[in-house]
Amino acid sequence: MDLKDVIRYEADRIDAEMRRDLAETVGVAPLLAEILEYGLFSGGKRVRPLLTVLCSRLCGRDDEQLYRLAAAFEYLHAATLFHDDVIDHADTRRGRMSVVKRYGRDGAILAGDFLHAQAMAMVGHHGGVDALAVFAEATRGMVNGEFLQMDQCCRADLSEDDYYSIIRGKTALLIGAACQIGVMFAGGDDRYRSALRAYGLNLGSAFQVIDDLLDYQGDSHHTGKAVGNDLAEGKVTLPLILALQQAGEKERAEVAALIQDEGRRGESFAVVTRFIEQFGGYQLARRQAEQLAANAVTALEPFRRSVDDQSLHILVQLVQYVIGRRK
Amino acid sequence: MDLKDVIRYEADRIDAEMRRDLAETVGVAPLLAEILEYGLFSGGKRVRPLLTVLCSRLCGRDDEQLYRLAAAFEYLHAATLFHDDVIDHADTRRGRMSVVKRYGRDGAILAGDFLHAQAMAMVGHHGGVDALAVFAEATRGMVNGEFLQMDQCCRADLSEDDYYSIIRGKTALLIGAACQIGVMFAGGDDRYRSALRAYGLNLGSAFQVIDDLLDYQGDSHHTGKAVGNDLAEGKVTLPLILALQQAGEKERAEVAALIQDEGRRGESFAVVTRFIEQFGGYQLARRQAEQLAANAVTALEPFRRSVDDQSLHILVQLVQYVIGRRK
Repeated sequence: MDLKDVIRYEADRIDAEMRRDLAETVGVAPLLAEILEYGLFSGGKRVRPLLTVLCSRLCGRDDEQLYRLAAAFEYLHAATLFHDDVIDHADTRRGRMSVVKRYGRDGAILAGDFLHAQAMAMVGHHGGVDALAVFAEATRGMVNGEFLQMDQCCRADLSEDDYYSIIRGKTALLIGAACQIGVMFAGGDDRYRSALRAYGLNLGSAFQVIDDLLDYQGDSHHTGKAVGNDLAEGKVTLPLILALQQAGEKERAEVAALIQDEGRRGESFAVVTRFIEQFGGYQLARRQAEQLAANAVTALEPFRRSVDDQSLHILVQLVQYVIGRRK
Repeated sequence: MDLKDVIRYEADRIDAEMRRDLAETVGVAPLLAEILEYGLFSGGKRVRPLLTVLCSRLCGRDDEQLYRLAAAFEYLHAATLFHDDVIDHADTRRGRMSVVKRYGRDGAILAGDFLHAQAMAMVGHHGGVDALAVFAEATRGMVNGEFLQMDQCCRADLSEDDYYSIIRGKTALLIGAACQIGVMFAGGDDRYRSALRAYGLNLGSAFQVIDDLLDYQGDSHHTGKAVGNDLAEGKVTLPLILALQQAGEKERAEVAALIQDEGRRGESFAVVTRFIEQFGGYQLARRQAEQLAANAVTALEPFRRSVDDQSLHILVQLVQYVIGRRK
């Protein structure tokens, strides 16, 4: 099976697991049930649960309970998206109305809280308290990443380190946790645990760097979202950071003034795009994403002789997919 | 010690525990840390943690770890308040600016998520996965209660059963869980577990009935909040439900029309208050609160000969306090 088939096959299994779990949860208010149905089953790729499944398999365990554990990552991810879309005033998600747009702010906040609680209970139940600690740490890290980002809004002097702290929290920690918890579930030893956590952290960071690149360079026809969102919201991301490092004092000051002036930020997209292009920001950012991707693949080294070479192969393909994506 | 002293003494211990826990959580973004400090330490009575402590003691366990477990209930409670105040557009909380008013919607949502995750991890760590399951069930129940309430907004035909389902979710389940988890922590047997859970559920329901009474009858000088909020928001609570049951067809229809007309709801407070008074709704609701309180005390029966008669005594006093409060 090639990657797309595997993703589709495993996503179906995760979806079935979520449906089973929701059906077992009795007494859910009708409106809540409708929001969960709408918000959860919208054709996501279920990458986080897939990582848990693959990492557990790679360490020798594959059973029904693994999917119950893995589904928790999709619940938490969905909870995060519900709340993020409230915060970002996002009207669309996965090519259709966001939960907040369709059901309003109160429904989005509360349904997110419901999934959050359910996710925690599932990880505790199927993965044990050590897995729960990792899971909760990633959740707190996501929140913290959002705060760091708010705090550093519109700052042209944002460093690469600051940027990586933000995306680690926002994106990479949960992906790393999905991998690590897969190992823990299978009883894999510390070496495996830290190897696959490192794989996930690097994969997640590479994913976010590419995402931030696509926010400048993406074809909105392909990505399903408009370009220039980050800049419009005052988010300074890697391509711009790296271009600012290369630019002279004068150009840097000009761009910094543009970013800080909320009134001009809308019209400044063309100027900033040209600036990043001129100073090689796109190329440099892509190179860093490729380095992160290479690190992810290197982290798989201990599994080179794994009996489960299919799971290993998919983990490698996932890295290539993240780096190669155009949407 | 009388009840107020006990509450103050134990609240200080819980506060110290929360401060210790927050200090141990490294790398928290400055703004998040500020919101947590502001939102958590505002003079709450810490009743939920107190119940966990008392119920564990009553079953023979009292140690440092008990406070670590108990503090989780205050985290979850605070997380709920942060989100509730976003949903209700509440500007004040405990006599000062709410978190959402002071730090904005995004900060309130995210800080709530942070505490939510931290609370789950603490219960898992100190109480184990069975306690976590109870805790998460209560959390989902709170969300569900909010949805039931939204769903049944402005309905003059709301039944007593509907009302009790809502307040069970919104208020009683977490208080019941605080008691039950105290027993579980101490290794108390099933009989103790269900007895103290029943105590908590009844106490929580009595608390909410009184709260709903005070929303009509309270002196805003004492309660620190304006009366008539529930009616203005279209929430039909017990005094009105019971008055509607007593009223004739014609009066019922008049009041139903008033409630459903959002434009007139503001001016209708005086009319509805008189209506409830006329048909004995306040008295009937208070009688139900007293019955719930009596049930709570009866649930303590198995502990009549407990060696820890001080904890038992405080649990009884708490019931009296809830019934007697004027704010």
